[in-house]
Amino acid sequence: MTRELMPELTPALTTASAQKKIVIVGGVAGGMSAATRLRRLDEAAEIIVFERGAHVSFANCGLPYYVGGAIEKRDSLLLQTPQSLFERFRLDVRVKHEVIAIDREHRRVVVRDLLTGQTHSEHYDSLILAGGAQAREGVAGGEIPVRTLRTVEDVDFITAELTDAGPSARAVVIGGGFIGLEAVENLVRRGLNVTLVHRGAHPLSPLDAEMASPVLDALTLHGVDVRLGTSVTNLTSDGVQLSDGSTIEATLVIEASGVTPDTGLAADAGLTIGAAGGIAVDAFQRTNDPSIYAVGDGVEKIDAISNTATLVTMAGLANRHGRSAADAICGLAEPSTPALGTAIVGVFDLTIALVGWNERRLRAAGRPHRVVHTHPLSHAGYYPGAEQMALKLLIDSETDLILGAQIVGRDGVDKRIDVIATGMAGGLTASALSRLELAYAPQFGSAKDAVNLAGYVADNLRTGATRSIQWHELDAARANGAILVDVRSAGEFDRGSIPGAINLPLDEIRDRMGALPDAPLIVHCQVGQRGHTAARLLTQLGADVRNLDGGFKTWEAGLLSTRPTNLMKEKEHDRAIQ
Amino acid sequence: MTRELMPELTPALTTASAQKKIVIVGGVAGGMSAATRLRRLDEAAEIIVFERGAHVSFANCGLPYYVGGAIEKRDSLLLQTPQSLFERFRLDVRVKHEVIAIDREHRRVVVRDLLTGQTHSEHYDSLILAGGAQAREGVAGGEIPVRTLRTVEDVDFITAELTDAGPSARAVVIGGGFIGLEAVENLVRRGLNVTLVHRGAHPLSPLDAEMASPVLDALTLHGVDVRLGTSVTNLTSDGVQLSDGSTIEATLVIEASGVTPDTGLAADAGLTIGAAGGIAVDAFQRTNDPSIYAVGDGVEKIDAISNTATLVTMAGLANRHGRSAADAICGLAEPSTPALGTAIVGVFDLTIALVGWNERRLRAAGRPHRVVHTHPLSHAGYYPGAEQMALKLLIDSETDLILGAQIVGRDGVDKRIDVIATGMAGGLTASALSRLELAYAPQFGSAKDAVNLAGYVADNLRTGATRSIQWHELDAARANGAILVDVRSAGEFDRGSIPGAINLPLDEIRDRMGALPDAPLIVHCQVGQRGHTAARLLTQLGADVRNLDGGFKTWEAGLLSTRPTNLMKEKEHDRAIQ
Repeated sequence: MTRELMPELTPALTTASAQKKIVIVGGVAGGMSAATRLRRLDEAAEIIVFERGAHVSFANCGLPYYVGGAIEKRDSLLLQTPQSLFERFRLDVRVKHEVIAIDREHRRVVVRDLLTGQTHSEHYDSLILAGGAQAREGVAGGEIPVRTLRTVEDVDFITAELTDAGPSARAVVIGGGFIGLEAVENLVRRGLNVTLVHRGAHPLSPLDAEMASPVLDALTLHGVDVRLGTSVTNLTSDGVQLSDGSTIEATLVIEASGVTPDTGLAADAGLTIGAAGGIAVDAFQRTNDPSIYAVGDGVEKIDAISNTATLVTMAGLANRHGRSAADAICGLAEPSTPALGTAIVGVFDLTIALVGWNERRLRAAGRPHRVVHTHPLSHAGYYPGAEQMALKLLIDSETDLILGAQIVGRDGVDKRIDVIATGMAGGLTASALSRLELAYAPQFGSAKDAVNLAGYVADNLRTGATRSIQWHELDAARANGAILVDVRSAGEFDRGSIPGAINLPLDEIRDRMGALPDAPLIVHCQVGQRGHTAARLLTQLGADVRNLDGGFKTWEAGLLSTRPTNLMKEKEHDRAIQ
Repeated sequence: MTRELMPELTPALTTASAQKKIVIVGGVAGGMSAATRLRRLDEAAEIIVFERGAHVSFANCGLPYYVGGAIEKRDSLLLQTPQSLFERFRLDVRVKHEVIAIDREHRRVVVRDLLTGQTHSEHYDSLILAGGAQAREGVAGGEIPVRTLRTVEDVDFITAELTDAGPSARAVVIGGGFIGLEAVENLVRRGLNVTLVHRGAHPLSPLDAEMASPVLDALTLHGVDVRLGTSVTNLTSDGVQLSDGSTIEATLVIEASGVTPDTGLAADAGLTIGAAGGIAVDAFQRTNDPSIYAVGDGVEKIDAISNTATLVTMAGLANRHGRSAADAICGLAEPSTPALGTAIVGVFDLTIALVGWNERRLRAAGRPHRVVHTHPLSHAGYYPGAEQMALKLLIDSETDLILGAQIVGRDGVDKRIDVIATGMAGGLTASALSRLELAYAPQFGSAKDAVNLAGYVADNLRTGATRSIQWHELDAARANGAILVDVRSAGEFDRGSIPGAINLPLDEIRDRMGALPDAPLIVHCQVGQRGHTAARLLTQLGADVRNLDGGFKTWEAGLLSTRPTNLMKEKEHDRAIQ
């Protein structure tokens, strides 16, 4: 950049304003992003951070991996200390200090020193609430140690318990969400027998059922005892009692059944709590009190799909909004952009990523949508090591805008969800994904990348070049007379097919089309691509055709997903008779 | 998708139109994408593909990796055969057939059968030219076998030569572009001694000089003899003679000094050749003759940054435009989007990716721009295996739009270039990159991901929160009296610093600021982040400060890049005196 092109400095940015006093409640992601940004913008400000825990700015997303041993040193989790934050940023960071009340009229907070029990009050010009969330529900009983996995103290407790228990330790993890699955994986890595108790019908509830099938497979394959559709009712000296009447022996219980915004302090002070249950803020992170800002897991976000308030508990958003609050306090305010809720989790060798809404939620909201399932490769098939992923795209059928995506696979899942999330942020249509210029060399991608392919399928639906049918619509369509034609090879058909399907390999359709009955046809192949070619061919030859979206693979995943609890019951039955 | 929501089918799509005859010249990426899409859209059409080579639809981007052995089977390169394309798509594919003339008036092409030498002519309703590009320049002489690396025949020839030559084989690769570097890597993998002869001052000319430094390091580290600023003048029985007077022994020479559009056929037929040297087409891939379309490496694209015609030779674009031409012929035309030129290459353990324009080109065009250099980690630093990459972002200083990016590193480079390319496609500003919600778990990314961080730096430049200075502007600024302050720790400073810099660690600035002279200051740290904090602090304390963009690392890379040919000469000198 040349000097001439340098923009004029905003006067407010060059010299510190008159001394302001800013109090921040909570010293992890959102609070600490706010604090450091504040200091960079305002050298003169007095900035006090109260953190009720013993540590600030720790790597909360790393906690499960310290339990499992991937992160070897506890120190790696501690990104900053009060001392380092004072030295670099002149922050007054007080750990083991809990803010217990806000006196909005006099702009003071009441703070309790958790070591001494003493309280004092502190004035603020601006207050930032970054207290986060808390475990949604406690578990009754107390014979077995129960712990969340949210703080350094938690992992200190857990690792001490596991060390005491020795090699025979058994753990129960309550909740098959992101943290629960990370806890499961890392406890297995540590050598424990692990039972996952999950209330929902499939692990990782933000996924649609058919996308969650591989997750269940991965858990089972690694020896995890998965109990779906159940919850913990009691902890006794006999073990963990479940709602289905069974009891599981356990040395330790990890409570990971979700979080709820920690709004007590805000509510007591009369700040508005929104309908979604979090502190209500405007696009500048400001509460209904213009001196009080709030950021992080305790706060409602605007959902990018519905434009309504929602809860999204992501570290990235907490950091971003912490910075926004600091900007707003320093007069640099720019409104927040709505939240997409991009998320990713590793479960053994599987990677699961998602963004936006899922099909269940779209259906529940009555929002018109199209669905695309594909099974692309992580990179060019002719280069070794390419791995198949399952990709699902949800599309607004009126605007062709992307409403959500789910990807399950191994290598390259993280890249594709980030590309789609970026496309959503840029307002791209699903069809426009086909036109993205993604970097291609055979070890990194394909000339038609996974995301491009999904875009092509979306474009074919948009233009009407292909009509598709979803796996869960198949039975009804067949009941209405549609004939299912499997266009895979005879060998593929023999290795496993959808009951009642006719096998007519794609390359033989032109010659053998006369063999097909005069009825609406549903064609399918393994993943959907040959099915598309078959559908185009048969349509042009005059047939009424739909392509089974995602092919045999999606159908099979859907089938498995419709009966996991049954499968579990069968497994229990097997155990009982052995 | 429910049936009710299904869009009405376009009548043109449901039944094949009257029989059309479409001739396609060239059967690899663009031509074959056009052919298969045409068939899916029009079952009745007669589609003939003439390919002068012996193979169609082969994996040209995989060729170097077959030479190196990563792709073990030659068959893996052959994605389709004329037989398979007939069976599935009823394509009439004729290899070893060269179209040698176009009779536009009568809509006929003259075709030579390269095996028999006989010619015949063929009528077309629509003609698609997908002949690609050819090697830019031949090499004089003929004592040593010279070959391009563009076809299956090429790799057959090369592997036969290498097998004959045995373990003592030595290769010279001419041209340090994408293909040249892939050739170098794979010949080294095969155990050869390899010399790279490159005309430019640094390998991979699309990179800016300072970004190419690690590429040169990687080549040297793997024993490649790199000759920059030179070209091949002659091939004799003594060896490969270079423009600097030296001679290199060689068993084989790979010619990879770039390609030029193969426009002879089009030009002879009076089709318009554009100023950039490719066949001129409109946004529907149509030439100035409405019956003739052209796609792929022989065709000009619209550059997304300048909106002018340019040459971009990427397989992804060839595929996309092949499909577009088919759509246009079938009445489904939608205009092409401009080309960003996203590209990626692996060079040993290094990955280099880029999109859009580089700084050199922006400066040459006089286009106002801002530059950001960062050195982010591939994933959270607290999780093992995080690797640092060098990221450069070029930004329009008037609109804040992204004009280009370059990334050099290892893990995660491909992801970040794809995210930035998608952001460019979506019209995101550089500052908006800070607000992208990218998937974060510690093994995949960071709460503030590499791309977010670049966005934050861009945002700080945009708002004027930080002023920066580039590595190549440093000398001039210091000559004008600016003082360079290294804010890293004393230990870092001692391990290597910029000559003449004062060391004042960031955490000591507040206490020791009085020691700084009353002059314009340039601060720097290792990568730019502490420099930013120091710049903000010193600015607020009243100083005139700029932050050295990218810190010591970018400066060092820039320094090395300014003298590679000198370094080479030194190396030659060392060799001479040994």
